[in-house]
Amino acid sequence: MNIGIDMMGGDYAPLETVKGIAKYFSENLRDDVHLFLFGNADAISPHLTSYNIPEGKITLAPTTQVIGMHEHPTKALKEKTDSSIAIGFKYLAAGKIDAFMSAGNTGAMLVGAMFSIRPVEGVLRPTISSIIPKQNGGTGLLLDVGINSDCKPEQLNQFAIMGSVFSENILGVENPKVGLINVGEEEGKGNLLMQASYPLLKENKVINFIGNVEGRDIFSNKADVMVCDGFTGNIILKLAESLTILPKNKILIMNILTVSISSLYGGTPVLGVEKPVIIGHGISHETAFSSMIDEAVRMLQTDVLGKVKEAIRLTGE
Amino acid sequence: MNIGIDMMGGDYAPLETVKGIAKYFSENLRDDVHLFLFGNADAISPHLTSYNIPEGKITLAPTTQVIGMHEHPTKALKEKTDSSIAIGFKYLAAGKIDAFMSAGNTGAMLVGAMFSIRPVEGVLRPTISSIIPKQNGGTGLLLDVGINSDCKPEQLNQFAIMGSVFSENILGVENPKVGLINVGEEEGKGNLLMQASYPLLKENKVINFIGNVEGRDIFSNKADVMVCDGFTGNIILKLAESLTILPKNKILIMNILTVSISSLYGGTPVLGVEKPVIIGHGISHETAFSSMIDEAVRMLQTDVLGKVKEAIRLTGE
Repeated sequence: MNIGIDMMGGDYAPLETVKGIAKYFSENLRDDVHLFLFGNADAISPHLTSYNIPEGKITLAPTTQVIGMHEHPTKALKEKTDSSIAIGFKYLAAGKIDAFMSAGNTGAMLVGAMFSIRPVEGVLRPTISSIIPKQNGGTGLLLDVGINSDCKPEQLNQFAIMGSVFSENILGVENPKVGLINVGEEEGKGNLLMQASYPLLKENKVINFIGNVEGRDIFSNKADVMVCDGFTGNIILKLAESLTILPKNKILIMNILTVSISSLYGGTPVLGVEKPVIIGHGISHETAFSSMIDEAVRMLQTDVLGKVKEAIRLTGE
Repeated sequence: MNIGIDMMGGDYAPLETVKGIAKYFSENLRDDVHLFLFGNADAISPHLTSYNIPEGKITLAPTTQVIGMHEHPTKALKEKTDSSIAIGFKYLAAGKIDAFMSAGNTGAMLVGAMFSIRPVEGVLRPTISSIIPKQNGGTGLLLDVGINSDCKPEQLNQFAIMGSVFSENILGVENPKVGLINVGEEEGKGNLLMQASYPLLKENKVINFIGNVEGRDIFSNKADVMVCDGFTGNIILKLAESLTILPKNKILIMNILTVSISSLYGGTPVLGVEKPVIIGHGISHETAFSSMIDEAVRMLQTDVLGKVKEAIRLTGE
């Protein structure tokens, strides 16, 4: 399998990206993994010679431009045609690589995923999720976390399916419990969207729906896959992330999301598109990049996107 | 001013309620405050004799029924006509008391507030808010936190007004900064509701609108009054509250909401109704009850509800 990496994306690229690649190969002796590195050759090459990367495992695909973290995604992708992200998606669309990842401009990665490669047939809207570390050490998944601010019930139902397949295949959660994020436990609670979504999830036979979960259940063991519209998910995610930056006075700190997610789990996949696209956190270091490669390998090995497609097809019948 | 207290509401009532009353009078020697105590005389009287409550400051209004914490609000209010909450609202509606408070069944308090006394003229929907302790020691206000799951832009605009008036008059925040809870900073971001609400808040001359605030800004100093629909507010509040019950493993704890809010600030007022109704947290102890009385006094003294009415009238012109 050929996995593409944007070497210029992230606050500590390309050094930490190279270290992550070295780490991955030092821990995983796989004959079937080959990496394509997109980025400025002058910036990357010196690091490549400093770290111990096995012969013949990488191909450098030199690019001359970089999309900055704060550039306008669509504009940047359009204008910077020789940027590492634009070229990466070109390779992905052409089938030269099987998966693509970056810790760079999130918006550009999303736009690339939505428009360079096709959505899975039957998927109304692709989605992005976030790993939520659970109180008991488990691994939860929250989706959508921001690309679909206004949702229809049918979309939430598909997020539930896509999240379940990802949770089971990539996060290793057996028969994941799916919860609908809501303001009360009983069916009939909530806003119009959640009232209309509940029956769809309840009738959905390809997921293990356990009912509503509330704000207080986000970090509890109640549900493994937590479904909501992207507006709600984004507020939850940013609130939880912000708790790392409250270092003073009586308020104690929970330092989980930015650190543990990116280190332990790599990045967030775009679900509902035909090929694996993984978006890393800007603060990604060595371990995060290594985990992202591992995540891409597992996504390809388990054919998780094929399984998403099949599950969507089954519920669409 | 005559302030009514439900003596049967809350996990530690009536003992802690009586202690709170004693504490209030020991710290506030006001001639103009008289309390009406609603509840079971046999349960209350022994405590009243044990604690030092000044002569002539209280009137016991005996009731025979109690609405439990988990009873269905509408049903309970309808059937338990001699409950402390039902009688309290009866006194409030009749003008025998000027404000009413309880740490009991929240739903029953809301139903009572909505249907026993009138909404302020021009108010589309009353709202409830929650105090949010800020990182810098300040006092934020989040609203709506649960009674209006689906909102119209005009409602959010009124929440902004009501929240501002409360923040300024009761929380002592000068010219409070009002933020709209959203998924990005720029105007035009967010779901349809927030996109449509932004221009209304921007044009609103009786508030100090500072733009969008994100999930990460909830505990920061960015905005004093944070406005959203009740669905989003409820998720935020319950998520924040849940952080007190994550006591193990690597995740550290923030123990702010349930403890500091109820101790320091008393309860949450229902805004947009003609008379002060204050809802305390079920875990309220002595200090919380004392603070709730103080809150009611300040609401009456500052005529905050009259000011809400005037601000709503001004923007409705």
